[in-house]
Amino acid sequence: MRVGDLGEFALIARLQGFLPDTASAQVIRGIGDDCAVLRPSPGAELLLTTDTQEENVHFRREWATPEDIGWRCLAVNVSDIAAMAGHPLGAVVALSLPPNLEVAFVDGLYAGMQALARDYACPIIGGNITKSSEHMSVTITVLGEVPQGQGGYRSGAQAGDEIWVTGTLGGAKAGLEALLHPERVAAVSVPYALARYRRPSPRLREAQYLRQQGVLHSLVDISDGLSSDLTHICVASGVGAELEAEGIPMHDDVRQVAQALQVDALHYALHGGEDFELCLTAPPGRLAGLRAEFEQQFQSSLVQVGTVQPGSGVRLVMADGSHIALSARGYDHFQSSGSL
Amino acid sequence: MRVGDLGEFALIARLQGFLPDTASAQVIRGIGDDCAVLRPSPGAELLLTTDTQEENVHFRREWATPEDIGWRCLAVNVSDIAAMAGHPLGAVVALSLPPNLEVAFVDGLYAGMQALARDYACPIIGGNITKSSEHMSVTITVLGEVPQGQGGYRSGAQAGDEIWVTGTLGGAKAGLEALLHPERVAAVSVPYALARYRRPSPRLREAQYLRQQGVLHSLVDISDGLSSDLTHICVASGVGAELEAEGIPMHDDVRQVAQALQVDALHYALHGGEDFELCLTAPPGRLAGLRAEFEQQFQSSLVQVGTVQPGSGVRLVMADGSHIALSARGYDHFQSSGSL
Repeated sequence: MRVGDLGEFALIARLQGFLPDTASAQVIRGIGDDCAVLRPSPGAELLLTTDTQEENVHFRREWATPEDIGWRCLAVNVSDIAAMAGHPLGAVVALSLPPNLEVAFVDGLYAGMQALARDYACPIIGGNITKSSEHMSVTITVLGEVPQGQGGYRSGAQAGDEIWVTGTLGGAKAGLEALLHPERVAAVSVPYALARYRRPSPRLREAQYLRQQGVLHSLVDISDGLSSDLTHICVASGVGAELEAEGIPMHDDVRQVAQALQVDALHYALHGGEDFELCLTAPPGRLAGLRAEFEQQFQSSLVQVGTVQPGSGVRLVMADGSHIALSARGYDHFQSSGSL
Repeated sequence: MRVGDLGEFALIARLQGFLPDTASAQVIRGIGDDCAVLRPSPGAELLLTTDTQEENVHFRREWATPEDIGWRCLAVNVSDIAAMAGHPLGAVVALSLPPNLEVAFVDGLYAGMQALARDYACPIIGGNITKSSEHMSVTITVLGEVPQGQGGYRSGAQAGDEIWVTGTLGGAKAGLEALLHPERVAAVSVPYALARYRRPSPRLREAQYLRQQGVLHSLVDISDGLSSDLTHICVASGVGAELEAEGIPMHDDVRQVAQALQVDALHYALHGGEDFELCLTAPPGRLAGLRAEFEQQFQSSLVQVGTVQPGSGVRLVMADGSHIALSARGYDHFQSSGSL
């Protein structure tokens, strides 16, 4: 059965059936009226973020299951809530679907979103479905909150701060490259990289932990790539940064894909987007003592990759001590071949 | 210059330049970080709604100026806040744009959104821009709030309630039909209908007034058409309704277009969507005394069109006393020719 056969209202009713009853302590009304209605926590500040995932621009149907795509679409938004050190209250999902799309695909998409929604306590509380002319498009908006005055901004970095990142970098890019070049690298041989591309894990609880420790001078999620996202911090804070090339954390799969495709693995780790790890700056000496507890609690590494400097721009310090000025190679969807 | 020449980041910077600085009493941070940050009013409940306007499904470039399209895209969302009797806190705008789109078009789109944003105190506080493969798509999400427990729901109608509507109905549909059939009706001869289609006016202040009067048992905005939207109230409230055919308010332009196209004007008024008027139910006798003040204050009519009945379904009572069961002819984008 195809979406066009079922029609808009039957499809909405069907998808609503997949969602658990969302009435909870903070969700007064989920799907079913002109707006979702929520109760904020006393004294909280609200967070609002929106992101579109466009078929053949952000994802391809042949590269992932519908469940993966649904997971990813919600994950990228929840990651923006993590990037403010907040927690989500709920998400609204706007789908544009070509009429010839199989309903089974939409079922899978919702199952994937619902899995992320459950794992990250981000209930789907509303949305919209409309016809598109050719390709699928998913725009999700997440509402979240953070205790008053405790949001993690890009603008708080100070010269002398340490720069830290969670997890490893370049994995999503390596996974994507493996999918793009099946003749040169077998995707099954790099399962970690593939999973990083298909099922990113927003660092929501990690960011909340760091906020509660009071160590965040600035915070961003690594969605465009470390070079771009650290530049966002530098520009917003009026500072520069130095990264130690040897300190950038990478999984072996990243090196393996890079080797197969004869590129520098560091390129993936610095410029590859969509890892959805955190990059933060903290006052000197504050994080070293928390690192063991963090890594034990979240089963994820926490690594210092550089320091904040006076001035502007991001410099990469190589193993031999030489410096390279790093340009922000932010992912520009209009300049690209539209593959990511 | 085209969107693809300018690129994503330059386009974002350009559009940001069009928007006034949004930091205000409730907007702590607008565009420029991973999320917008807002301060809710003490004791308020939050409202969240999202809607997509897809080129060649919801609008055609040749039927309206870019400014009109921008206005419409934000208006349909603000109308959902009106439908809950709330007020907006801010909007996030997700644009999917084909690379060959003229930048001047996007400028116009934003100018139209900005005009609505200013008139309705709904600042644009964030968004997302991405490439689309062929057509343009605009998904806007509005966050609003309403005093605790005072939201206007679909579910509060009671048998015996009066059913009232603001303004006149069928105008947007008549305007659209005029644009669709230029050979049979000159659009310039029906300027009211055309304006209703191109620049709908959400009934935000009107809904707030009615809430403050404490007369709202149930409330909905007429986006799909009175037959559909009143059915939403009936289903959610577990009641039926009777509409008086003679009481349905229509502008002369609606009759003129209907006559030219040889259809019943009542069809437009009952089933034509996108008027974005309010439909509400109120306890008997409560609204008659407020009507003069309402109409004077808002320069808009307020008319009783029927009564809530026990049972289910919507019946139309004709001038001769006969009854017609009215089916909800909600606008289904998948079943349509994609013209609206």
